[in-house]
Amino acid sequence: MKAAIITIGDEILIGQIVDTNSAWIAQKLTLAGFEVEEMQSIGDDAQQIKVTIEEVFSRVDVILMTGGLGPTKDDITKKTLCDYFGTTMIFDDSVLENIQNVISSFTTLNELTRNQAYVPKDCTVIQNRVGTAPITWFDYIGKVLVSMPGVPHEMRYVMENEIIPRLQAKYDPDAYLKRVFIVKGYTESALAMYIADFEDNLPEGFGLAYLPSPGLMKLRLFVRGEHRLEELNEQVKKLQDILGSAILAEKDITVEKLLGERLFEKGLSLGTAESCTGGNIAHTITSIPGSSRYFKGSVISYANEEKVNILHVSQDSLDRFGAVSEAVAVEMAKGAQEILNVDCSIATTGIAGPDGGTEEKPVGTVWVCTTYKDRCVARKYQLGRFREANIVRATNIGMLQLLEMLE
Amino acid sequence: MKAAIITIGDEILIGQIVDTNSAWIAQKLTLAGFEVEEMQSIGDDAQQIKVTIEEVFSRVDVILMTGGLGPTKDDITKKTLCDYFGTTMIFDDSVLENIQNVISSFTTLNELTRNQAYVPKDCTVIQNRVGTAPITWFDYIGKVLVSMPGVPHEMRYVMENEIIPRLQAKYDPDAYLKRVFIVKGYTESALAMYIADFEDNLPEGFGLAYLPSPGLMKLRLFVRGEHRLEELNEQVKKLQDILGSAILAEKDITVEKLLGERLFEKGLSLGTAESCTGGNIAHTITSIPGSSRYFKGSVISYANEEKVNILHVSQDSLDRFGAVSEAVAVEMAKGAQEILNVDCSIATTGIAGPDGGTEEKPVGTVWVCTTYKDRCVARKYQLGRFREANIVRATNIGMLQLLEMLE
Repeated sequence: MKAAIITIGDEILIGQIVDTNSAWIAQKLTLAGFEVEEMQSIGDDAQQIKVTIEEVFSRVDVILMTGGLGPTKDDITKKTLCDYFGTTMIFDDSVLENIQNVISSFTTLNELTRNQAYVPKDCTVIQNRVGTAPITWFDYIGKVLVSMPGVPHEMRYVMENEIIPRLQAKYDPDAYLKRVFIVKGYTESALAMYIADFEDNLPEGFGLAYLPSPGLMKLRLFVRGEHRLEELNEQVKKLQDILGSAILAEKDITVEKLLGERLFEKGLSLGTAESCTGGNIAHTITSIPGSSRYFKGSVISYANEEKVNILHVSQDSLDRFGAVSEAVAVEMAKGAQEILNVDCSIATTGIAGPDGGTEEKPVGTVWVCTTYKDRCVARKYQLGRFREANIVRATNIGMLQLLEMLE
Repeated sequence: MKAAIITIGDEILIGQIVDTNSAWIAQKLTLAGFEVEEMQSIGDDAQQIKVTIEEVFSRVDVILMTGGLGPTKDDITKKTLCDYFGTTMIFDDSVLENIQNVISSFTTLNELTRNQAYVPKDCTVIQNRVGTAPITWFDYIGKVLVSMPGVPHEMRYVMENEIIPRLQAKYDPDAYLKRVFIVKGYTESALAMYIADFEDNLPEGFGLAYLPSPGLMKLRLFVRGEHRLEELNEQVKKLQDILGSAILAEKDITVEKLLGERLFEKGLSLGTAESCTGGNIAHTITSIPGSSRYFKGSVISYANEEKVNILHVSQDSLDRFGAVSEAVAVEMAKGAQEILNVDCSIATTGIAGPDGGTEEKPVGTVWVCTTYKDRCVARKYQLGRFREANIVRATNIGMLQLLEMLE
């Protein structure tokens, strides 16, 4: 069953925002058994919207569309869909009621927001429980077009709770069977060479995809069709035999979630002491709901003064070895363990870039120290030249290093 | 002068990666005076690539394409372009020489990499100074198609140094004039109603776009053509008169960057004490290169114990008012100011969700306290139901609240 994604908005075409909706929707559609054929981003332009729908409908069964549903006059998607499907706009009291529920806690209704309750007559209206723009679903010559708001959390909520279940009920696409493995210790090409035989001998229809992310690799083994489950299980067994303990987990899970699960199972508490990651480890860990069951807190010691005053790093170590050193990383991690009163800690100190590098300690040099009760591991990593990437990589590395200690 | 961006890769269509190239290219093209009409992402499929080029060339003058130029057999863009433009592949010694220069510092040539030196005969080859895949530029009935690698830093390097200058030399497009305003204190619909008259009376060719983000709004006023600069300035003056102090800044800048600039100008230091934002304020602020000039550190006090032990919040306040209260927010902010020894602080305490809400303090309740020397402001905000969105909104609100105090 073929699908396409169309995102609408002039702000995308001038590069003011990165379209993250398309990738998110594509992932969900793929898992639900649909094949995403193409993604298009186009402007808030009626003619262009109509031409694009026409072209794309000639190739796919399902079009999911986001954007252009705001209350201001540059938002024209709803009106344009009305024209395209030859229907008219009517006022819908149930939409108005939903809008009033949504906004009641923080503002009152004004005229522009009230106008959001106008919807095309011949379509299925799906209420937006987390925003004011209603979702419209058009059935058309056996095909479907759904128009959703471009605000990511609104789109995500309605996709998960309404659109995906309805699409699956309507089309019953071949199940997309997959297993995800989190593999540590390999670069993409090294892993590909190591499992080349396995990959070459996969049965017809099977696929293996590599998703490298900073510090680790996700492997996705997939095939379409419920009847192939047994074959999939056979291949999984083979892969397990080949990779052994390099498999860190057998589910599609983030490192932060995996770490959280392990800590919670073992009844352990965690804290961090962060310099170069600047709070990103704490932020990443606390992005998981329920993380307060194991995460107690952090000290972000961006300045040396804070390393000494709060974490009790010795001035002597700072003077002798510098802030980016094994000694300081260890003292930070142990200091965090003590003052946060936690079982485990992760400490980072390094040069995120773009400035601050030296011959001896170039940009990308990072020391990571992890502690688990009275054990302590400190390692030096040489990351890259890009600040943003270095912060994310050091974050993942810190969590992985602790995970390893917990195994 | 109309342009389109086509990104190629199966990994985009299954949502495995977010296509960030398109937005980056769109930004550069727009500033260089081109109008980006559309962006498409398609698979590594020869037929689909050809059909898409054909369709898109019927609408635009310039196609910029990324992806599908790797050395392995799933990368078919170069061969497909050869077919599409009716030419053949030849071996290019200058490309080989460039490849050898690029890889010499870290590896030796193998056969797959050597094959990168095959290029279409009838095209302009542009050397890739930072990677092994050459860039190919096709002139075709007055139009241009450029194929670049999908690796972001390779694409960016060649775009800035080669492609944009050549495109400008060839087409000499009208400049894109724009002004961006960061506006605080309005929802999108409230702002639209407030400036409706201004918007209705904009001169022909002018546009006004709204980009809402958590806690603030970006307004972009734009027009094409260097000769319209004076008119633009007139409209800017009008908008300034209407919005007055609601304009937080007149540039396209993030809140964290703006806050950093103000702190640095005034020689002030900053620290944070974060509970519900879990380190995201520190992370957001330290994502800016050079933030160590004003940011000293944070205490992430996720557990009450850390609020008391490290930030010196009184147990009495916690008992009497609860962790999510004005008293605790104020004590956290003042505690941070003291123990981090900073001029300014931002403190957050709230219920990010999805659990933990009560009748009296539902999910989304957040207290934000900001201090600037001996001044202190604490405000309660009622945010939404979604953890991720609440963390981002509370982060922006905290930075905005401090910015307001600094004005």
